[in-house]
Amino acid sequence: MTTSPLDRLAIPIIQAPMLGASTQEMALAVSRAGGMGQLAAAAHSPDQIAASVAELKAATDAPFALNFLMTEPVRPDAETVEAAMARLKPWYEARNIPAPPAPNDYSQNFKAQLAAVTLAAPPVASFAFSILTADEVAALHARGVFVVGTATTVAEARAWAAVGADAICAQGFEAGGHRGAFLEPVRDSLVGTMALVATIRRAAPVPVIAAGGIMDGRGVAAALALGAAAAQMGTAFLLAEQSTINAPWRHAIETADDDSTRLTRALTGRYARGIENDFMREMRPVETEVPAYPVQNRLTQPLRAGAAKAGDPSVLSLWAGQAVTLAGPGEAGALVQRWWAEAKAVAGEVAERTGL
Amino acid sequence: MTTSPLDRLAIPIIQAPMLGASTQEMALAVSRAGGMGQLAAAAHSPDQIAASVAELKAATDAPFALNFLMTEPVRPDAETVEAAMARLKPWYEARNIPAPPAPNDYSQNFKAQLAAVTLAAPPVASFAFSILTADEVAALHARGVFVVGTATTVAEARAWAAVGADAICAQGFEAGGHRGAFLEPVRDSLVGTMALVATIRRAAPVPVIAAGGIMDGRGVAAALALGAAAAQMGTAFLLAEQSTINAPWRHAIETADDDSTRLTRALTGRYARGIENDFMREMRPVETEVPAYPVQNRLTQPLRAGAAKAGDPSVLSLWAGQAVTLAGPGEAGALVQRWWAEAKAVAGEVAERTGL
Repeated sequence: MTTSPLDRLAIPIIQAPMLGASTQEMALAVSRAGGMGQLAAAAHSPDQIAASVAELKAATDAPFALNFLMTEPVRPDAETVEAAMARLKPWYEARNIPAPPAPNDYSQNFKAQLAAVTLAAPPVASFAFSILTADEVAALHARGVFVVGTATTVAEARAWAAVGADAICAQGFEAGGHRGAFLEPVRDSLVGTMALVATIRRAAPVPVIAAGGIMDGRGVAAALALGAAAAQMGTAFLLAEQSTINAPWRHAIETADDDSTRLTRALTGRYARGIENDFMREMRPVETEVPAYPVQNRLTQPLRAGAAKAGDPSVLSLWAGQAVTLAGPGEAGALVQRWWAEAKAVAGEVAERTGL
Repeated sequence: MTTSPLDRLAIPIIQAPMLGASTQEMALAVSRAGGMGQLAAAAHSPDQIAASVAELKAATDAPFALNFLMTEPVRPDAETVEAAMARLKPWYEARNIPAPPAPNDYSQNFKAQLAAVTLAAPPVASFAFSILTADEVAALHARGVFVVGTATTVAEARAWAAVGADAICAQGFEAGGHRGAFLEPVRDSLVGTMALVATIRRAAPVPVIAAGGIMDGRGVAAALALGAAAAQMGTAFLLAEQSTINAPWRHAIETADDDSTRLTRALTGRYARGIENDFMREMRPVETEVPAYPVQNRLTQPLRAGAAKAGDPSVLSLWAGQAVTLAGPGEAGALVQRWWAEAKAVAGEVAERTGL
């Protein structure tokens, strides 16, 4: 087991990877502020992984992480792709966005990414959607990499601990973006953050990172009270200066109604939480029929890219967690420090309330 | 607005009502220990309400609550009842439990209960499944009753605040038993405790009681960190000495696996969380078709009563929250005091961690 970079954090706040919203700049700002930034590396080629790690290492001595979404290489048959595109065609046509030809590939090759990140050896690597083998974890350890596995259930946390993960990121029901479930169907793998952190903490012999619904210093203090080693925050960074979310996504976050997020499988073929829009609503009855991630994800990409350019939120992935209405603007590093100051004040409040 | 009994609690822990598991004795023990006990009064006649309030008032000066599940009087047509019973018949027959004739009534008359509790004037009355009118709340206030409304979304919390409720019980996704949703369908009213408490606290101008996934002093401290006025605990009391759960339910709680609870509509016609059993599993594909609460609830009652007697958990309502594996035995009042001591220790831990 590698010495824990979590213990080296001045502030136990981790920036969630947030593919499409975060950047190297954001990760660096968070790490420099005393928290831990994460680079969403799921779409990175092996060369990009090497370059990013080198740049971040050169820029800071503080811990940072690269995050990966584990996917098997897929080769869907022509009928599957045609059926999926037939369902998407009206959405493309209504927006005058050219429907793409059948793609040649659907995702980065994860095994190549894993080899690259093992070689590049960032302080921390985190993984979701599946699980590494004990040998793969050992290879990361041999290079000094601290391994974080994402779990949505206690069983998944136990599985990660069994292959040697150094920490578990407990992804609660509240969390925005993709669900990390990999042992059972997502509908049977939905546990609220409060219960998930409490039960994983009791079941797994490694530090737990709490994720889902944490939006400010109160949430950070609550996570620590539950016994988490750190709090991971994603939605809370979506309006940060360094966030690269497109304009309609930003507008949707800024104007989100209460109770406005839903889980959807329609956009990417894997359940994810976002602010409900027309596409999510109208595709709901058939969302279990679309091809699994990464196929549907790839097939809707040009639609989403075109709509984003046109300022049209109706078919976008407006990923956000359940407490999205609490998101606010700020420089990412300053946000981390503000939340930590709040957490300290809350700790004082709770100490007083308990008569400590 | 009535002066808050929440402010009079020595320990901000509220025992959840838990129809079928709690008793007057449990409520009294919790209130005497410094928390607040709640009597599940949903099945009480008006006379029983008057008697219970009189007995509790005579037994303690500490705050206690009566809880009600608001239901409209229903008169399902014969076809509805026959279709529902046809679906249940194999379950009755396989267990040699006589299927009941069509019932004459399906629930207590809530308006009569409301009149009785207004007259009896307990310190606190809490309500779920629907919402009172402003006039009904005003009538309770005129008798000095503190009114708690159960909300599963921010919109429901705002609605309760608008009719004059004195506090909101925020029922998170994690919670065991029936979902209190009343504005939108349950599937669109599922918010994790962490996010729900944070967002309701910001949106509603009244104290928030956190419920769902709170099992020990860590959970209590986390609820206070989130800004809750108190933590409501249900599953954590299921193995208490005063708990009246039947033997197979107790055994299911004691031996619960991780991640073993599910929401089901099959048992009562209203979504509720419990440990999954054969009935929940096999009825899942048709659970949206069974008649709404209280009809299905009434039609499965003899089945559940017979099975409970026979020690058969397969058709029981094994209500439990998502962190059920953390439930443990103890005297109810002693549990409250233990959790509070734990919360105090956790407050110290968080204060130290934040460098306070």
